[in-house]
Amino acid sequence: MNVAGIPYRTIWLDQEDPRVVKVIDQRFLPHRFIVESLSRPEQMARAIVEMHVRGAGLIGAAAGFGMYLAGLTADHSSLGSFMRDMARSAEMLISTRPTAVNLSWAVRRILDTITVSGNTLQDKIRICLDSAQAVADEDADFCHRIGLHGAKIITEISNKKAGATVNLLTHCNAGWLAFVDYGTATSPIYTAFEQGIDVHVWVDETRPRNQGASLTAWELQQQGIPYTIIVDNAGGHLMQHGLVDMVITGSDRTTFTGDVANKIGTYLKALAAKDNGIPFYVALPSSTFDWTVRDGVKDIPIEERDEDEVRYIEGLAENKIISVLIAPERSSAANYAFDVTPARLVTGLITERGVCPASEEGILSLFPERRATVSQP
Amino acid sequence: MNVAGIPYRTIWLDQEDPRVVKVIDQRFLPHRFIVESLSRPEQMARAIVEMHVRGAGLIGAAAGFGMYLAGLTADHSSLGSFMRDMARSAEMLISTRPTAVNLSWAVRRILDTITVSGNTLQDKIRICLDSAQAVADEDADFCHRIGLHGAKIITEISNKKAGATVNLLTHCNAGWLAFVDYGTATSPIYTAFEQGIDVHVWVDETRPRNQGASLTAWELQQQGIPYTIIVDNAGGHLMQHGLVDMVITGSDRTTFTGDVANKIGTYLKALAAKDNGIPFYVALPSSTFDWTVRDGVKDIPIEERDEDEVRYIEGLAENKIISVLIAPERSSAANYAFDVTPARLVTGLITERGVCPASEEGILSLFPERRATVSQP
Repeated sequence: MNVAGIPYRTIWLDQEDPRVVKVIDQRFLPHRFIVESLSRPEQMARAIVEMHVRGAGLIGAAAGFGMYLAGLTADHSSLGSFMRDMARSAEMLISTRPTAVNLSWAVRRILDTITVSGNTLQDKIRICLDSAQAVADEDADFCHRIGLHGAKIITEISNKKAGATVNLLTHCNAGWLAFVDYGTATSPIYTAFEQGIDVHVWVDETRPRNQGASLTAWELQQQGIPYTIIVDNAGGHLMQHGLVDMVITGSDRTTFTGDVANKIGTYLKALAAKDNGIPFYVALPSSTFDWTVRDGVKDIPIEERDEDEVRYIEGLAENKIISVLIAPERSSAANYAFDVTPARLVTGLITERGVCPASEEGILSLFPERRATVSQP
Repeated sequence: MNVAGIPYRTIWLDQEDPRVVKVIDQRFLPHRFIVESLSRPEQMARAIVEMHVRGAGLIGAAAGFGMYLAGLTADHSSLGSFMRDMARSAEMLISTRPTAVNLSWAVRRILDTITVSGNTLQDKIRICLDSAQAVADEDADFCHRIGLHGAKIITEISNKKAGATVNLLTHCNAGWLAFVDYGTATSPIYTAFEQGIDVHVWVDETRPRNQGASLTAWELQQQGIPYTIIVDNAGGHLMQHGLVDMVITGSDRTTFTGDVANKIGTYLKALAAKDNGIPFYVALPSSTFDWTVRDGVKDIPIEERDEDEVRYIEGLAENKIISVLIAPERSSAANYAFDVTPARLVTGLITERGVCPASEEGILSLFPERRATVSQP
């Protein structure tokens, strides 16, 4: 998507020096746009650990490119020493975010492929690059398809409103910054906007890490899409007063029965949407489905993060990014990162294959190849 | 209530110099405890305008004491000039917070009384002080009664749990800092705690002004009551997992039909409580009832405040209180200060006269003298 009018992905091979991978260092957004050049796998690992790059789709691609950098910088003196270095780098990359399924999957697939394919070290390095590119391209392609499917829903609402502004509400950042391009929750919005639909986005601040106010707002601003930042408390009031036509969020994990784990606070917005008869959609690539868990509220483990993310807030003052304490010293704080929205509150799921009801039957109708393997009640 | 072990009210007459009124300057909480001395009505007006003191109960008492300071410093050369000065001060105090009903009511009552009563200027000044004290004492007394009535509900829950910790969730600051003493939502908690009930409070941060994380957390800390600060997004998740036994909030205005206007985000917590079968109580002095509005969601006007309260957050860094930008520059933000929770989501109202259902019939059964005057459907 665009940054200051120039199209970007979140990760790409440097056009001038193909031994360098570039990423947007997201730690400085929205205050500064900084592109980071990476030429060693250790640098990529650090970029993932320290969250220069974040989001399921993006860190999968980042780990893939990390394997490419590993190939470039491994010991080239013999096949054995090369493969030993590659295995070591793979281990390092996988350990950056241990719970990230996409990431370990991408790294293992690349390591397995170069173990059996590629006659020369150059061939193997080429395979690493092609695989990383393929992971990135597939991520962008799936997000693009989600946009096409989701935009139809927005268009229908626009038609019902005789072309008046469609007000969407989103929570957290399921935008292109979390993927390679387009995003999930944002992709239908970008597509509808390109198609000339009049859209406006209510952007939930998304405490405690404020990904809405910082990242989603920045994305929309760069794209020229009208938006308004609101505190997470405001969505219910807006819905009561007819100011929201559709809610659309991403998902960190969705059960095959349609329960949606997403950023903490999503459940509250789903309740308000239900109470006010407003459609609540979740956009996700199918890699986000968990085909083993039946009851999301009961069985999806919820990460608890550092209390200081609640007690302190980061922002810009006097041109420096600083952290301020907002609570009494020595206060306890709890920091649950996600919550689970029960399927009964979800109007539909927008996937790369199309839109389906948030139910076992709905999901399996789009992904029939999973029918044999999902766990029975 | 206690500050560092010493009992305080939020406003009081100086013991050593009865020409001085003291208030807690709440702008510096929770980071610094500063007591301000006021000896002129202009200083009191500024303390109200600049929110050194805030909260319906407290600003009513503050305006009353402002009239006492006006009496002390008015022109004493003749009755006419004295009363002219008093009328001018009354105007100034009323204009500090034009929508605050308590405040203008207290000031007008005092002005009317001294117009007809008091033989000497000293008598009239004494009447101002007595009236201000009476406003403050009644506020404290009503909050104390709310505590006694509400504590019974907490005790019942404690008994059902065989004495295990009762987990309460509250939103914003309906604590003693918003009143003269005890508070409304906090008063039942303080009372139950004093009675030996094992309580723990989940404190909603309450964006955008963070009154929960700053004021409510500070109050509870000073009182020695266990609490945990959470982001406003977290309450739904806690309720889904049995970690909340009761929600209790204050109210800025409650219709005689039981619809509750309170700090933005209250409605979302009420929805989550309903969805999880958790009692949702609202504590309020009867001065908060609006006997004219039947449909709160439709007819209570909601104040929109400065966008910068959303874009910037204030906190402590390097021992200074500073404000940091958390959004892209030039972002629009919307800042609705309150929302309305429909009566159907409210388990009960806790008033100075007792607990009643959040319904016209319930409210009128406690306040039968209003039956003749409320508007008919």
